Order: sequence, then structure tokens, then C-alpha cells
Amino acid sequence: MQHTTATIITIGDELLIGQVVDTNSAWIAQHLNVIGVWIHKRIAVGDEFEDIWKALEDAEQSSDIVILTGGLGPTNDDITKNVLNEYFGGKLVLNEDALKNVEKIFQQYNRPLLEVNYNQAMIPDVCIAMLNKRGTAPGMIFEKNNKLFFSMPGVPHEMKFMTEEYVLPAIKEKFKLFAVEHRTIITINIGESFLAERLKEFEANLGTHIKLAYLPATRMVRLRLTENLLTNELSNIETKFLELKQLVQDVMIADEDISVPAAIGKLLLQKNKTVSTAESCTGGYIAQQFTSVSGSSKYFWGSVVSYDVSVKENILNIPKETIEKFNVVSEEVVTVMAKNVREKMKTDFAIATTGIAGPDGGTEEIPVGTIWIAVASENDVITKKLQLNYTRERNIEATTIAAFGMLTSVLNQ
Amino acid sequence: MQHTTATIITIGDELLIGQVVDTNSAWIAQHLNVIGVWIHKRIAVGDEFEDIWKALEDAEQSSDIVILTGGLGPTNDDITKNVLNEYFGGKLVLNEDALKNVEKIFQQYNRPLLEVNYNQAMIPDVCIAMLNKRGTAPGMIFEKNNKLFFSMPGVPHEMKFMTEEYVLPAIKEKFKLFAVEHRTIITINIGESFLAERLKEFEANLGTHIKLAYLPATRMVRLRLTENLLTNELSNIETKFLELKQLVQDVMIADEDISVPAAIGKLLLQKNKTVSTAESCTGGYIAQQFTSVSGSSKYFWGSVVSYDVSVKENILNIPKETIEKFNVVSEEVVTVMAKNVREKMKTDFAIATTGIAGPDGGTEEIPVGTIWIAVASENDVITKKLQLNYTRERNIEATTIAAFGMLTSVLNQ
Repeated sequence: MQHTTATIITIGDELLIGQVVDTNSAWIAQHLNVIGVWIHKRIAVGDEFEDIWKALEDAEQSSDIVILTGGLGPTNDDITKNVLNEYFGGKLVLNEDALKNVEKIFQQYNRPLLEVNYNQAMIPDVCIAMLNKRGTAPGMIFEKNNKLFFSMPGVPHEMKFMTEEYVLPAIKEKFKLFAVEHRTIITINIGESFLAERLKEFEANLGTHIKLAYLPATRMVRLRLTENLLTNELSNIETKFLELKQLVQDVMIADEDISVPAAIGKLLLQKNKTVSTAESCTGGYIAQQFTSVSGSSKYFWGSVVSYDVSVKENILNIPKETIEKFNVVSEEVVTVMAKNVREKMKTDFAIATTGIAGPDGGTEEIPVGTIWIAVASENDVITKKLQLNYTRERNIEATTIAAFGMLTSVLNQ
Repeated sequence: MQHTTATIITIGDELLIGQVVDTNSAWIAQHLNVIGVWIHKRIAVGDEFEDIWKALEDAEQSSDIVILTGGLGPTNDDITKNVLNEYFGGKLVLNEDALKNVEKIFQQYNRPLLEVNYNQAMIPDVCIAMLNKRGTAPGMIFEKNNKLFFSMPGVPHEMKFMTEEYVLPAIKEKFKLFAVEHRTIITINIGESFLAERLKEFEANLGTHIKLAYLPATRMVRLRLTENLLTNELSNIETKFLELKQLVQDVMIADEDISVPAAIGKLLLQKNKTVSTAESCTGGYIAQQFTSVSGSSKYFWGSVVSYDVSVKENILNIPKETIEKFNVVSEEVVTVMAKNVREKMKTDFAIATTGIAGPDGGTEEIPVGTIWIAVASENDVITKKLQLNYTRERNIEATTIAAFGMLTSVLNQ
């Protein structure tokens, strides 16, 4: 017996010229996977009739489910609906519910309906409309040869609503689905090949239904165990997962698929501790990472982004003499930054960073990529110096992950 | 005459189950487009022999250039090299340069070479190796029927180095390329359909070689003019670009394809002004956006992320009575936040935000999505209230774009 499979087709010139990163496919894939649908392939084509048609044929031939996003907007380059109409041999008719939906949206903004938006309410008579609560373009569901085809807008929040409201329920109703189970571990500060060497024997003994994947990123590797159960076999993934956790305990910061700041947040909540940051070269990135997690106000109290030297002196109260004597990028300065912000914000811990993220600003003494991190606790400050040579963005990311690693070790003491 | 075309194939299970967003394709597409290569299609498949093979056949049949990323790592799921070896009828042999490269990397980290890394230096004898300065896996170039095939690692910074060092030069040497010209305008605070209505006549008069695309995002729309010159025709894009700029002058914040914070940064530099932020619900996101731009230290001096109320009182010196009387999410509080951080940081302008980004924290009086923004200048403070109902992440993004819009209007007074 085979898994139910899907092909995802994303439509739009902007995806092909690279001005927009395709985040929709990843989101859809995750959500399909969770209910047991196996993504077979993803195809991205431009707003071109022929290419969309060929992608449809390819997808229909190889998958049970076809999901298209994009090309449903009100402008001239949006042709998806026309392609689908011809592909399924339909005729465009006005859908009353879709029209009411569009009218309601424009009423909210107190604007008159434009002809292009009226046309968006016309859909093929051989499909079912998926009403769009967050925009003007309705989605469409087609059925053919026991396969389901879904067409949705490319605008992410519109697509997400439609997927959860219509697409997932329709798939669950039509197909008999078997669970795909995932377990994820997040490790930091260890390279992929060293992890693989450590886990060689473990991998060899996984059996036929469980696979281990390595997903490396800046200063971290996510390990993903995947189990494919096609019948009523017994699941073995929990046992293997416990085994894996034991093997990587020293470098593991989370045993679920969450972001690094979410993992740190859980640990802070668990220990009932608070944290603040004083950031120079990371420019607010660490604060933003903390606050990207819902509920972070329970443990993250604030930050001083001291991008200009005057702010370090006036708000963080770093003595001018210290900065002049040791240089703003130094262990001495980052130590005082961490201590002072910790006291000012009255948190249990504080992270401070100072350095040169690049690409400019380096000197012979202190080249681009020189970065100091400090983590202050009540009675101690630990520091670390990094010498990085990535892009500016990646230097900041790497510094942040390293800082989170230091905070983790201090919390786990 | 046709444009030189390329298909991009990304390989890896993690892309199909959506744990990783595909940023490589967008980056490669941008860089190919700039030199005149037209991306015809993008395909993503799993670490499956059959699927990679079929994607290769599809790509070979429809494009001049095929670029594969992923599946070159040292672990068991990495099979790209084996597929390519069979596809092109080669034999795996040890590449001395690739081996030296791997040895050097491991020497740097003072680590012994593992067998799996040694195997990475074995490549098909029917290809040319692309040495990897940033990792252990060499890339490969194959040539067949006047087409070029490139295989690179999926790790972004390794792929980027290889693309710039080997791939782009090889393509420029082999193919006769005609320029694809793009011009981009960034507009904020106007919806896509209203822009389209405004530009209806303009679009109708673009001619056959120029296309206008709309790329909407949170509270902004990017407009992209694209010109395809296939022979020695005269370019007309500058004229059309000037015309377009005139039509959207009131909502335009940049006339090049840069990020919104980069656009704001240019304006601040031009006016020789500085800015700081006091952030509550945006949690450092605005600061991080400012500092993501290289050189921002010339105009961005710092931020106080006052996530906990105590920080608003102690560091921003908001009177406790003001907070208690009006509530921390109020026009009164955000006004004082902006004024005070402006004075403390001694900047010309300051942005402040307070609100409830969600999904939790709302009350009947102040529901989730209630957000106040203030922008303080020397003699004035302007405020705006938003009532949003997106996800937490998008509420924060929308607030940030709205704040940048307010700062722009104040700068342009």
C-alpha cells in the first residue's frame, strides 16, 4: 500500500526571478505531512499558460492530490483560473457567494468595487468555490479520476486560511491516510559530519520504516527521525527517539521541532528566570528572536540596543575611560554591558554583544567578524570571542545562536 | 531567438516536508536573471533516485542549463552524486584537489578526517570539479548536447560561493546572453487592486517587450517592470520607468529593489537625520530592521525594548501614574515613550510602539491587535492607532511598515 501523495505547484514570475522566496510550499508541505500526505514533488512555473498546463499534467500523472498557489489576483498576469477552466473543460460563471464576499471586503474599507474584483468572483462551473475570508480571490476545488486539485491565492495568509478551512478537511474526507511520524532534536555547536559519525551505528539499526535526516543551519543541526507506517504495524519511533536523545544529550537544546528562541524560552520558564539584552553589533536581533515567541514577556524583560557609542555611555553607563582604554569591541566592555543591563532591567541574566558584523567597519587590529559575547548572572559573567567571516546577516545569526548556547549552559548549571 | 533558459532542481526530503524553506532557488534565480538567463521552472524532489532522475530528464529536455542543489553531504540520504554518475555514464574516482581541500578544512579545526568526508572527494570522471572553499563537498559540472549541468551543495553559503566562483562564469562563457532589465518601485499603504486600477492605461501602453508585475506583501506592494531584449533592439525601459514613478509618486518610498529599511536609511542619510526606537509589542523588530542594513550606524543610534512595564518606568521614565491612568497600550503612553527615548538617545526622530501583538494578552477593552505607534520630532509627535487581526508575526511586521511610513512622511515634510 502506498502513501497518499501530493504535488505542489507554485505559480508566478516573481518566484522564478527570485524576488520572492517561496514560503508557501514549506508551510503547505508541513501541514499535509502532519495528516499523512507524502509530498512527492514541488514545481514552480511562471505566469505562462503552457508551463502551468504541463505542470498540471505532470502532477496529475504522479500524485493523488495537486495543490496550486498563485495567479488568482486581479491583474493581467494572473491566468491560473483560465488555465484550470480549460484544463477541466468548464465555463466561467458568476459565483454569488464569492461576489458577496468581495463586496463585504470593499464595504469594510469604504471603497467602490472595481471591475477586476468583480471578475474575481467568476469561477469555472466544474469546480467548488473556497470562499476567501482574508482576500478577494476565491479558491477552487476540482475532482477528476479520484484525484483532488486545489487552487489557492499565493498571498500567504489567504492561502493558510483556505488550507486549514477547506483543503485539509477535504483531503481527510476523501483519502484513507496513514500517519507519518516525525521526531526532532535540535543540537548546537557541533558539525554535521561529527554528529553523523557519532550516530553511525544508531542509523544502521533503525530498520526499514524509520529514517534519520540531518538539517544543518548556522551553528546548529536539526536531527529528524521519520517513521512511515503503511498498515497497522506497531510504531517504534518513541524507542528510537529516546535512544537518539541519549546519544546527543550533551549538545541537545530541544527535543521538539521548535525554534531556538522557543527552546530557550521553555528553559527560562522551567527555571523561572528572566533575561535582558544589551546589544551592539546584533542590533536588536537577539531581542527580536526572544520576542518572536508568544508568551516571552514572562521571561524576557527588555533590551538596550546601544548602536552608537553615546548610548553605551549614557544609557548603559559604561565609563568613557573603559571604552577608550580597551576599545568598544573588547571583553572588558562587553562584560560591563552585560552586568549593567542586568542590573538596570533587574533580570536574573543578561546577554551582551559587541563587535563588527561587517561588511565594513573593520580595522587591522579588530577585523570584520570580531565579536564578543557576555552572559551575566548574579555572581558571574562568562565571555566568548568569535572570529567569523560570513555575511553580515549570518555573522549576526551565528552570534545569536552562540549567545543562546552560552545562556543555556549557564541555565543548566 | 530565444532566451537561454535554466531549470533549478532542489534535492532533499527536508524541503518536501517543509522543515526548511527553500531560499537557494530565489537567490540562484536572481543571479541568473541578472546575467540574462531566464528561469523556466523550479522542481523540488526528495532524496529519491527515481525522482531526481525524472527531474533531470524533464529539465534536460526543456532548458539549456540545469542547476541542482542538495544531496551532496556525507550522510546516507545524500545520493545526488550517484544519480548523476549513472545519468552521465561515469565512474567515481578520487579527485586529488577535492581531497586536499577536505584535508585542509579538517586541519583548521584540528580534527581527523572521517571516511565519509574522504568519500566526498570521489567524483564522476565525466565531470569537472568545483572546489568548495566553504565546505567539504565539491560541486560538479557536466556537459551534454551543448547543455550545462551544475550540481552544488544545498548549504546556502557554500552554494553561493560556488555559483559566483564557477557557475556564472561558466554560463557566461558558453552561452550568448541577452539582457533582461528590471526596474522596481516600492509602494506602501495602498492595495494591489487600487494600484492596478491607477496603472491600467499605463500597462496597456507598455508594448510587447515590457511587462509590469505586482508583488504584494504586508502593507506594501513592489512594482516590477521587466524588459526582454532579444536582439539589438533599443531599450525603452527608462522612459517607462520615469512614467511609472510619476504615477505612483505619492505612495512610493523607493525606486530600486531594496528593502524598506534600506529605503528609509537612504532617506535618513540624505536628510542627515538620526533615529532611535522605544519598542514594546514590536519587541526589537524595528531596531533589527534598521540594523539589518549595512552602514545603519550612521543614522540609527539605538533602541530601548521595554517589554516589561518596569522597563518603561525605570529606563524610559514613563510616569507610573500615566501608565495606570491611561493603560500601557494608549496614545498617551506611546507619545511619552517616543519623546523620552528621543531625548535620552539625543536623536532627531524616534519611533515608539505599544500594543498587543497576540495571540494572547487581549482584553475586552483592549483586544489583540490593538497597536499604537508614535513618531517624535523636535517639536511634534504624530500618532497612529492600528487594529490588526493577523498572526503575531504579521501584526509586528505590519506595525513596522506602518511606522516606517509615518517616519517617511515626517522626513519628507
